[in-house]
Amino acid sequence: MSLNQSYNSPLLDAAVSELAKLPGVGRKTALRLALHLLRKDKETALSLGNAIIEMREGIRYCKICHNITDEDVCPICSSPRRDRTSVCVVENVKDVLTIEATHEHSGLYHVLGGLISPLDGISPADLEIDSLVSRVEEGEVKEVILALNPTMEGDTTNFYIYRKLLHLPVKVTMLARGLSIGNELEYTDELTLGRSILNRVPFSETFHRED
Amino acid sequence: MSLNQSYNSPLLDAAVSELAKLPGVGRKTALRLALHLLRKDKETALSLGNAIIEMREGIRYCKICHNITDEDVCPICSSPRRDRTSVCVVENVKDVLTIEATHEHSGLYHVLGGLISPLDGISPADLEIDSLVSRVEEGEVKEVILALNPTMEGDTTNFYIYRKLLHLPVKVTMLARGLSIGNELEYTDELTLGRSILNRVPFSETFHRED
Repeated sequence: MSLNQSYNSPLLDAAVSELAKLPGVGRKTALRLALHLLRKDKETALSLGNAIIEMREGIRYCKICHNITDEDVCPICSSPRRDRTSVCVVENVKDVLTIEATHEHSGLYHVLGGLISPLDGISPADLEIDSLVSRVEEGEVKEVILALNPTMEGDTTNFYIYRKLLHLPVKVTMLARGLSIGNELEYTDELTLGRSILNRVPFSETFHRED
Repeated sequence: MSLNQSYNSPLLDAAVSELAKLPGVGRKTALRLALHLLRKDKETALSLGNAIIEMREGIRYCKICHNITDEDVCPICSSPRRDRTSVCVVENVKDVLTIEATHEHSGLYHVLGGLISPLDGISPADLEIDSLVSRVEEGEVKEVILALNPTMEGDTTNFYIYRKLLHLPVKVTMLARGLSIGNELEYTDELTLGRSILNRVPFSETFHRED
């Protein structure tokens, strides 16, 4: 089928074009999805359409940590059970979910909204870095955990934030880098393996970490 | 991430749940799509949502051939350039598009809406077979081309329609089955190869078909 084929119905054409804008969805898949929605009962398609619209119109960003939320302040920031002295800095909303799934971080978050990347034209001013500094300046935060991707952009952003926080009485830590649990040495890349040798930890410490 | 994880936002939860109902879309993909829609400008998400709703509410089925259309009668049935004596019978709307893409059928279509399948509880009464017979009875149709999938259900439906049309002055043909063009003999299944031997055609005829 040609790419710009029309489907005898401008309504179907429009739906296919919009669906094909989704990442990873080509025109063939978009057509399959549209025909699926036509085959199913009306409710399915209307619920999907409305859920997308309501989500986009209703979702806001937490004014403290910039995570998505339906309120002014997200459930994590407003929870009395979270440790308010520890803030985990992540690139995006999805990383909050990924870290929450580990159940190892009981503190708050700070979503940067991206990483410093001169090639993509993303400068520190485009990210929520100033608001992070302001949060720390308020004095309650004792530890900032940098949990950015172990990439060039992540490292650049880590270093930029580290310098910005240098004058403040806050501990800045970053996620440990080393062997993936379950991976074999043979298949670990040299950079990671080399770094895990440099950053080796006393064996006895690994017990304490279980707490 | 657990399957029923909540994303700090009932609106996001709802959108992810609805997106995950699409065929081939799991919860992880649904979350990726939802976050993509949140990242993009508002217009993208609203256009998608509205296109889905408008398609589902606005699309109708052609009252002659049961193809999808925005009108009472689809553009193919109402086109003066199509050969009204030849009707190609297909399983679904997608097959119309597939056959149209070959540019080898200049006649009309008839969309059955499925195939006879006792296992799935689909009987002839659930399909647009009676309406096909009525169309043929009107007398204008000279040839019915059965273009159903070469499966057990397709063959059953072919035979059922053939018997239903037996008493009418209409030629009933079906799509040729044989070697796929470009395929090697070695990799053709025995059934197809066997049938292509039984249904061999005079070599000279293959020239005429080029016209």
